[in-house]
Amino acid sequence: MTKAQLFDQIQQKKSYLCVGLDTDIQKIPKYLLTEKDPIFEFNRQIIEATHRFAVAYKPNIAFYEALGSKGWESLQKTLEYIPKECFTIADAKRGDIGNTSGLYARAFFDKKSSGFDFDSVTVAPYMGEDSVTPFLDFPDKWVILLALTSNAGSKDFQDLQISNDKQLFEKVIIKSQEWATDEQLMYVVGATKADMLAHIRTLAPNHFLLVPGVGAQGGSLEEVSKFGMNSQCGLLVNSSRGIIYASSEKDFAQKAREEAQKIQVEMEKYLGLYL
Amino acid sequence: MTKAQLFDQIQQKKSYLCVGLDTDIQKIPKYLLTEKDPIFEFNRQIIEATHRFAVAYKPNIAFYEALGSKGWESLQKTLEYIPKECFTIADAKRGDIGNTSGLYARAFFDKKSSGFDFDSVTVAPYMGEDSVTPFLDFPDKWVILLALTSNAGSKDFQDLQISNDKQLFEKVIIKSQEWATDEQLMYVVGATKADMLAHIRTLAPNHFLLVPGVGAQGGSLEEVSKFGMNSQCGLLVNSSRGIIYASSEKDFAQKAREEAQKIQVEMEKYLGLYL
Repeated sequence: MTKAQLFDQIQQKKSYLCVGLDTDIQKIPKYLLTEKDPIFEFNRQIIEATHRFAVAYKPNIAFYEALGSKGWESLQKTLEYIPKECFTIADAKRGDIGNTSGLYARAFFDKKSSGFDFDSVTVAPYMGEDSVTPFLDFPDKWVILLALTSNAGSKDFQDLQISNDKQLFEKVIIKSQEWATDEQLMYVVGATKADMLAHIRTLAPNHFLLVPGVGAQGGSLEEVSKFGMNSQCGLLVNSSRGIIYASSEKDFAQKAREEAQKIQVEMEKYLGLYL
Repeated sequence: MTKAQLFDQIQQKKSYLCVGLDTDIQKIPKYLLTEKDPIFEFNRQIIEATHRFAVAYKPNIAFYEALGSKGWESLQKTLEYIPKECFTIADAKRGDIGNTSGLYARAFFDKKSSGFDFDSVTVAPYMGEDSVTPFLDFPDKWVILLALTSNAGSKDFQDLQISNDKQLFEKVIIKSQEWATDEQLMYVVGATKADMLAHIRTLAPNHFLLVPGVGAQGGSLEEVSKFGMNSQCGLLVNSSRGIIYASSEKDFAQKAREEAQKIQVEMEKYLGLYL
């Protein structure tokens, strides 16, 4: 998917919501466990209920991988069920040396090889340029590079001050722009604080940012929108648990729809104010 | 597997060779393609031919993942075929926030959940402590943390000088020792230069180091052994292509055996000299 197509969808749906499919067999409603593929059935109903309000879906690959080969089958059915206009993110945090990253690219982008054709994959930057560029060989596919994450451990290395210069996550944002344009590169930015987001916008004014942690994890959607939005929106804001586990009963899809719609209505307001 | 068990095996086999199972459907002998599961059949013959000379096997997960759910099935059969005394490494370079890393741990360590029970998994450090520690909840399972990799991109971030202090990869080695002991933590060290290995040994005297890039990629086994070995060996030296693709004909397993034995004989000499 191109950046223009993504922005077009954002304008049509008046939303920049990404629904995180962190689907855990231990958390889905118990009555689904009699289904042949409970994980897919849960996702199917969530997608059906929310796709009018969401522009992107982000399966967290660990949740599927933890179930072995049958987890990958559930993931494949899920990906095929997501409406084609939606942007799809394999949240896999991959990254390896060149020829191996090429194989990870095939795993997520090359349907003929793996059965998967996601629009994008999240990538860890530690191994540098040749761990990122093989993904860019696929036209209109995206790398979403970890820059600043929202977990406690982000302070261990990402925040480190590089000699006479910037913090590590800032170096990641600056250096990686030598490898790809904002037509194929986004950043994961867990910052929900206004000043940090405003600062990151000075480093990457045109890139889309994938912002996790709004909702259950307590970030403010208004701050993110006010300080993170650019002229093509430039934001995908993810909510996982707040939507998919809004109810653990038979009404889970209905409650998910209500939560997604609530966020979409708020986003429509911010698109009016800050775009 | 405990550290003592691993060292015991090294002493018995007089080897610290790890065979990298970077098994590529496009590179295995053509005649295997008529098999029901060519990837597994190739691996089966490689393992059969080399396990007397190798103490560890390291499937590169990308190669299996690129084939979708059937790749995971080949991987599962491969893991089950590896003799129980051998140390197994899921070379997956995973790493995510706490609860997600917990699921990756289940994916590679919890047979009941995923079908896999590797002894260890390679992990990327960028997200810090809570991306590493969930793997340690599994007794006698190991994290092999990326410290200094051997690819060109390692200079982009790993080599960066932190203010008034060390390079990033050194910080990774020092900081991570707060999270786990050398009974559950190893490091990937792509350094094959003598002075760099000697230096890393001052930072992590007791840890096992997984050293890729000896063989096809041209590192010197003698230098690695001389400057990297500690009193419990402390080295697993990987060779992938040099062994598994020693021949592309029907004699591939025989040639793999010869290459593995050649390395084992050299290792036996270095164990005599440097242990």
